Amino acid sequence: MNRIYFDNAATTAIDPQVVEAMLPFLQNGFGNPSSIYSFGRETRLAIENARKSVAKILNAHPAEIFFTSGGTESSNTAITASVRDLGCKRIITSKIEHHATLHTVEYLDNRDEAKVSYVDLLPNGHIDLEHLEQLLAASEEKTLVTLMHANNEIGNITDLHAVGNLCKLYNAIFHSDTVQTIGHFNFDLRSTPVHFISGSAHKFHGPKGAGLLYINENVHIKPYIHGGGQERNMRAGTENVYGIVGFAKALQIATEKLEEESAYIQGIKYYMIEQLKKHIKGVSFNGDPMGRSNYTVLNASFPKSEKSEMLLMNLDMDGICASGGSACTSGAQQGSHVIRAINSNPNQIPVRFSFSKYNTKEEVDAVVQKLKTLI
Amino acid sequence: MNRIYFDNAATTAIDPQVVEAMLPFLQNGFGNPSSIYSFGRETRLAIENARKSVAKILNAHPAEIFFTSGGTESSNTAITASVRDLGCKRIITSKIEHHATLHTVEYLDNRDEAKVSYVDLLPNGHIDLEHLEQLLAASEEKTLVTLMHANNEIGNITDLHAVGNLCKLYNAIFHSDTVQTIGHFNFDLRSTPVHFISGSAHKFHGPKGAGLLYINENVHIKPYIHGGGQERNMRAGTENVYGIVGFAKALQIATEKLEEESAYIQGIKYYMIEQLKKHIKGVSFNGDPMGRSNYTVLNASFPKSEKSEMLLMNLDMDGICASGGSACTSGAQQGSHVIRAINSNPNQIPVRFSFSKYNTKEEVDAVVQKLKTLI
Ligand SMILES: Cc1ncc(COP(=O)(O)O)c(C=O)c1O
Ligand SMILES: Cc1ncc(COP(=O)(O)O)c(C=O)c1O
Repeated sequence: MNRIYFDNAATTAIDPQVVEAMLPFLQNGFGNPSSIYSFGRETRLAIENARKSVAKILNAHPAEIFFTSGGTESSNTAITASVRDLGCKRIITSKIEHHATLHTVEYLDNRDEAKVSYVDLLPNGHIDLEHLEQLLAASEEKTLVTLMHANNEIGNITDLHAVGNLCKLYNAIFHSDTVQTIGHFNFDLRSTPVHFISGSAHKFHGPKGAGLLYINENVHIKPYIHGGGQERNMRAGTENVYGIVGFAKALQIATEKLEEESAYIQGIKYYMIEQLKKHIKGVSFNGDPMGRSNYTVLNASFPKSEKSEMLLMNLDMDGICASGGSACTSGAQQGSHVIRAINSNPNQIPVRFSFSKYNTKEEVDAVVQKLKTLI
Repeated sequence: MNRIYFDNAATTAIDPQVVEAMLPFLQNGFGNPSSIYSFGRETRLAIENARKSVAKILNAHPAEIFFTSGGTESSNTAITASVRDLGCKRIITSKIEHHATLHTVEYLDNRDEAKVSYVDLLPNGHIDLEHLEQLLAASEEKTLVTLMHANNEIGNITDLHAVGNLCKLYNAIFHSDTVQTIGHFNFDLRSTPVHFISGSAHKFHGPKGAGLLYINENVHIKPYIHGGGQERNMRAGTENVYGIVGFAKALQIATEKLEEESAYIQGIKYYMIEQLKKHIKGVSFNGDPMGRSNYTVLNASFPKSEKSEMLLMNLDMDGICASGGSACTSGAQQGSHVIRAINSNPNQIPVRFSFSKYNTKEEVDAVVQKLKTLI
């Protein structure tokens, strides 16, 4: 049975070229990058070259790029430091953020380190910018706004410039979880009004356990993980050299053919929308799939029935990987907090299909065919 | 020029069998372990098998084993949680701990979350157990004791049972940084009075970026990194599957031949002591190299002279990797906080040589020969 992998928002296949770039550092090039001898300097160089390459692609300064263990750690660092080091007493976020954001802000709220407000969402899942401005205007207290760039479940894209400019106006700190968009869109951080962004290599065909934290040169924070002086005293712990090299290589590959590949993946998504509409009665879509939406993500709702309640399981039995929510909670079967926040219809089964360069329209045909029999 | 790698306390070469065990998960087995479909369950299974294997080797319950991004994160987690979740108001540690410990406790002290005391050291670098007991007895406040098992710079080994039993007596929490001993000594955690230990795969021929936190089943803490429900809600973030698999494989390999290999490495260390004494006038040794000491580490002091001040650089030029302190600060050239704490003689140049199964006595001969010409 051939597997059809439509869960690329959960994680992606590593590009074989990325593995190839990592291998030398898994084999002979094992020196500790913080060592003073030349053998350590080789790995140090690999890390600094990775940093330069990532900085160049995102149009940031190398000094603004920090490598972490993943998107989750990056968001924890940015959010916690905004409260601890930058004096933010308020946090504005949304109910559809990833748990890496939500659970961090809830933690800070519970400890009375910051007060959290949630910006209203429009029916299509976009954040209500007017409400955001009202919230910002409602208090003089220093505020952190943490809003994701693209939602991992419904794909909605938030305009970083619109939010960032509002933040500027109210002197707020702006962190954006860009885990679903780094490697999928072009970034020009030097002209983007954002203080922090978070990224994770395994979302764009890089390795798991390798993350990025961009810290704008104008903000100065302390580390979240204390210890050695790695990452210019910003992230302690012996560097995951292969992960860092893999991060940079994956970003480079993703960027090289970004136009071409995003158009190709967009085509698959639109084709699936079309085919679902044509073949599945009662299908609807969550978010704003044809509007400001990530080309990699399609969240469809199917009418609930005895059969469709087992949908994901039945798809799995046919080798089709799709998910009901973000991976890290789907095991828990609690349903999706994102869908709950935007669409409270209990008579629908939401399924996220998410695509990569390795998918094809033929796979869409096969999945739609299968869905027909299951609904 | 052949490289002689005598810096195995900084990091070790990955065992090729470890890379082999990791590769399937860097290639086709990329599914997200938290996904519900079978393709994700394959990686989940790999993680759970890794956990079981590690637990078995350390004689712990699988439920007590948590995978992290490294020893540094593990120590940050244990120490912070002891203060935050277990009510510790005092921390007792020593001046020769790794910075992952020292900078974390300093951070908590600076924030007035806990008050830190430093246990006295004996001239040979061992902690003064009587003073430890005095410190423990001096206050009724709940206390965290964080003392490393083997020091990474001088190799001194602290008796976990002696410290743990004292902690028990005074109802203190005990964390031990075992980063230099996991994979190098046998552990029997079920009978060791310790609440937390930290480990790091790259110190025993495993991958960088893969750590272990053992949390005794009787203590209940909250995560340090917030987000998804990974690691049974204890460590959020998509799991570094290859890192975890590599950790377990490296520990398994290290354990299989532990007796044989440790005797072999001990032999190299003793041989080097002997040869240094024989050939280098004025050499002395820091710590307790022939006593309670890690067989992997030898810290020698050489008389200071114009020539010897450039010792590490000159060794490097001959392809010899050794270090002046722990790797993560050696770049900063500040000298070693460990040596400063136990031996304040400014007329000595301390050099750490640290060994692995890949080293030989012939390499010792070559290094001693070289040292002769440099001092
Ligand atoms: C004793 C000790 N503790 C903690 C660490 C930190 O481990 P890591 O750098 O893998 O996070 C190291 C090594 O760097 C160490 O030698
Ligand atoms: C939007 C978003 N933010 C954060 C994360 C966390 O990234 P990681 O699991 O790699 O730490 C993910 C994916 O898991 C994500 O989709």
